[in-house]
Amino acid sequence: MSSLQTPPSDQSATPLLGCQVDIAAIDGLRDVGAFFHQRGWSVGTSSNYSVLLQQDPLQLLLTASGKDKGKLSRSDFVVVDAEGKGMDPRFPKPSAETLLHVAIAEELSEVGAILHTHSIWGTLLSDLYFKEGGFSIEGYEMLKGLEGIKTHEHREWVEIFDNTQDIPQLAQQLRTRLRHPENPIQHGFLIRNHGLYTWGKDLFAARRHIEIFEFLFEVLYRKRQLQGT
Amino acid sequence: MSSLQTPPSDQSATPLLGCQVDIAAIDGLRDVGAFFHQRGWSVGTSSNYSVLLQQDPLQLLLTASGKDKGKLSRSDFVVVDAEGKGMDPRFPKPSAETLLHVAIAEELSEVGAILHTHSIWGTLLSDLYFKEGGFSIEGYEMLKGLEGIKTHEHREWVEIFDNTQDIPQLAQQLRTRLRHPENPIQHGFLIRNHGLYTWGKDLFAARRHIEIFEFLFEVLYRKRQLQGT
Amino acid sequence: MSSLQTPPSDQSATPLLGCQVDIAAIDGLRDVGAFFHQRGWSVGTSSNYSVLLQQDPLQLLLTASGKDKGKLSRSDFVVVDAEGKGMDPRFPKPSAETLLHVAIAEELSEVGAILHTHSIWGTLLSDLYFKEGGFSIEGYEMLKGLEGIKTHEHREWVEIFDNTQDIPQLAQQLRTRLRHPENPIQHGFLIRNHGLYTWGKDLFAARRHIEIFEFLFEVLYRKRQLQGT
Amino acid sequence: MSSLQTPPSDQSATPLLGCQVDIAAIDGLRDVGAFFHQRGWSVGTSSNYSVLLQQDPLQLLLTASGKDKGKLSRSDFVVVDAEGKGMDPRFPKPSAETLLHVAIAEELSEVGAILHTHSIWGTLLSDLYFKEGGFSIEGYEMLKGLEGIKTHEHREWVEIFDNTQDIPQLAQQLRTRLRHPENPIQHGFLIRNHGLYTWGKDLFAARRHIEIFEFLFEVLYRKRQLQGT
Repeated sequence: MSSLQTPPSDQSATPLLGCQVDIAAIDGLRDVGAFFHQRGWSVGTSSNYSVLLQQDPLQLLLTASGKDKGKLSRSDFVVVDAEGKGMDPRFPKPSAETLLHVAIAEELSEVGAILHTHSIWGTLLSDLYFKEGGFSIEGYEMLKGLEGIKTHEHREWVEIFDNTQDIPQLAQQLRTRLRHPENPIQHGFLIRNHGLYTWGKDLFAARRHIEIFEFLFEVLYRKRQLQGT
Repeated sequence: MSSLQTPPSDQSATPLLGCQVDIAAIDGLRDVGAFFHQRGWSVGTSSNYSVLLQQDPLQLLLTASGKDKGKLSRSDFVVVDAEGKGMDPRFPKPSAETLLHVAIAEELSEVGAILHTHSIWGTLLSDLYFKEGGFSIEGYEMLKGLEGIKTHEHREWVEIFDNTQDIPQLAQQLRTRLRHPENPIQHGFLIRNHGLYTWGKDLFAARRHIEIFEFLFEVLYRKRQLQGT
Repeated sequence: MSSLQTPPSDQSATPLLGCQVDIAAIDGLRDVGAFFHQRGWSVGTSSNYSVLLQQDPLQLLLTASGKDKGKLSRSDFVVVDAEGKGMDPRFPKPSAETLLHVAIAEELSEVGAILHTHSIWGTLLSDLYFKEGGFSIEGYEMLKGLEGIKTHEHREWVEIFDNTQDIPQLAQQLRTRLRHPENPIQHGFLIRNHGLYTWGKDLFAARRHIEIFEFLFEVLYRKRQLQGT
Repeated sequence: MSSLQTPPSDQSATPLLGCQVDIAAIDGLRDVGAFFHQRGWSVGTSSNYSVLLQQDPLQLLLTASGKDKGKLSRSDFVVVDAEGKGMDPRFPKPSAETLLHVAIAEELSEVGAILHTHSIWGTLLSDLYFKEGGFSIEGYEMLKGLEGIKTHEHREWVEIFDNTQDIPQLAQQLRTRLRHPENPIQHGFLIRNHGLYTWGKDLFAARRHIEIFEFLFEVLYRKRQLQGT
């Protein structure tokens, strides 16, 4: 995706209310939004996406709240800090779930982009397997699209968190699971009847993870539908 | 959606057979039509859409009858009054369901746009739950896309009216339910084996409601399909 | 659909190997092909489409055999006569099912365009109800998109013919059913495990019929799926 | 598809790191990638495609590993030899499954293009019928889209190989089945929980085979779903 390549910074850096932001980062998220909206994964102003601008102190470029993800304009973004606050008071309101982005960016060392979507299949699975706390995906070649996975003989655990409007509390729960010493969450997770979070070293990798998970979610649900009979 | 922003009126007001109409309002509805047709929600010249031009006396900009919603031209619209009659005899025939638009615009104080679509999932649910008079949608994050809903712990009742070709009578039924003192219809309703009506303070909000309802209809039907087994 | 409007003949008539053909008619079919291919109704060079050029003696503009319907070029067409033969020996091979188009054009007086598609839902229903000889669609508002239908309280019979490679024999069977004095086929029919034929007074109407039937086929199959459980 | 027509070689031959490659061949594969990605058959950098450049000694133009198939650039390709090695050390890494392309190109005499995709329906069927070693598709008109098939009364056997990361071993298994004296694999095969391989005398034919198989896979799975109940 050519728009995801970072051009030399003297050409592309643009002030977003005082914050120096690569225009390519903004346009990359706009492309992602148009694609996800077309796929039905980000309808009705749902979803939010972010790109890491700097690690220390943390700065995230994030979609503003309540925007049509299919037609994001260059001003539908904010830059937030480690508290999830906008770096400039004139920014539009950041997404309500900003603290989840911050938690992921802080807990994981190699994250460049974080994507959150709301899909039919993810929603269905997040409810179906909620009591079990999650579900495994195993034996699919498509799993090799997840960073670091070299064989289909991989078992991916997709954890499901209960939904809540108390985002700080959910962010805390999430941090515990991301830094778990033995079996931390690896590539993504679901929130019940809500949606999917995944990430990658850059936007290209994060988008690939969304595509991989969505494909596998649909396969799993349709397979279960046949088994059920 | 930039085409939904109203530009200064001296630039965009255009006479639609004598009625001053924002060209942006017309183009907004054309965009919506192309999008809904592509999604399969407005196929075969079905559906109709309107935007409130003025409240008192009522004037609605409405799609003409029998047009391809995927390729609306600027002349595929009419302006109607509170009786649902075209403001100019040279207008094409307004939609047969004009009086439902009028009822919604008159009964609800904050309506700027009204959208009516025909989808697979809405049609299926409108039949499945007809005997119960409707169905509830509860516990989904996506519900927060409905105006005024702040939490997924909301229960949205989707009422189902029987289908009829007697539109004045259906409009009367609908008014009764919209002005109901205790539990009025809030965001939209279905007509059995026919389609969905929803609305919003502006076209952007109404379109968001269509997307939200369609997403939730598909989730509900697919969930029911698995439970059925 | 503006490309379906016939412009003045002195501007648009173009010789297709000696036959005077409206370029608008050709481009109208190309638009239809691109749309149907995108919808998955005309994949893999399947399907064929025609427009009536003149009634007496019969001339049909028809898609050539084996072309990608998603990317029809202006030379992917032939003009055939009442025997289904190309009017010029240099034409590409007409569709194998030309005689079905001829039969429909000759038996029905108000046909301007004939469309044949291959869809998932039509294929499934054509097999499911083959033993019954067809199936009824009843009670849907969407039925009003079929020419002449004024109410959802209509019962549309969709007849299913067995598939065969003997097209002249199938054409004869079809003629018998089209001219049946009491209950002739009205808007379209299915061929088992093959596809849908429908038509209209012009290309716009025929395309609308395809959209209507496809919508209703999907609704019927999905409804049956739930009932089955 | 005009981009699949090979223009005169003096106009279109372009050096790809020293290898003379028709730019039309590259752009043809890029078109195919965009189309398959849009259809959901090549998501998340999955899939790989090739075109035969010369038979003896074998040269294949092949997609490089790990590229977004929806947005292939002209440099996302390699030229490989009969050992599946890049013809130039500066090429990006060829697809991990290069040896399957080589096996098909060497064993079959009339292959001009080879396409490998990962679809929902193919994945589901490849698991459902794995124990039986494959499944038959029979009686569908759409089968006539497979090269050489003249009637719907054809029975197409779709063989399913077990998935493995040992590609040389799978390539050997495949060769045995392609050169089988009595019932060789004819138009394509599935790898369990992985994807579809098919081919054709040119890219147009191979793409048509993908469309045909995908259509029939969806029909078969949905039919089975109803029968299951």
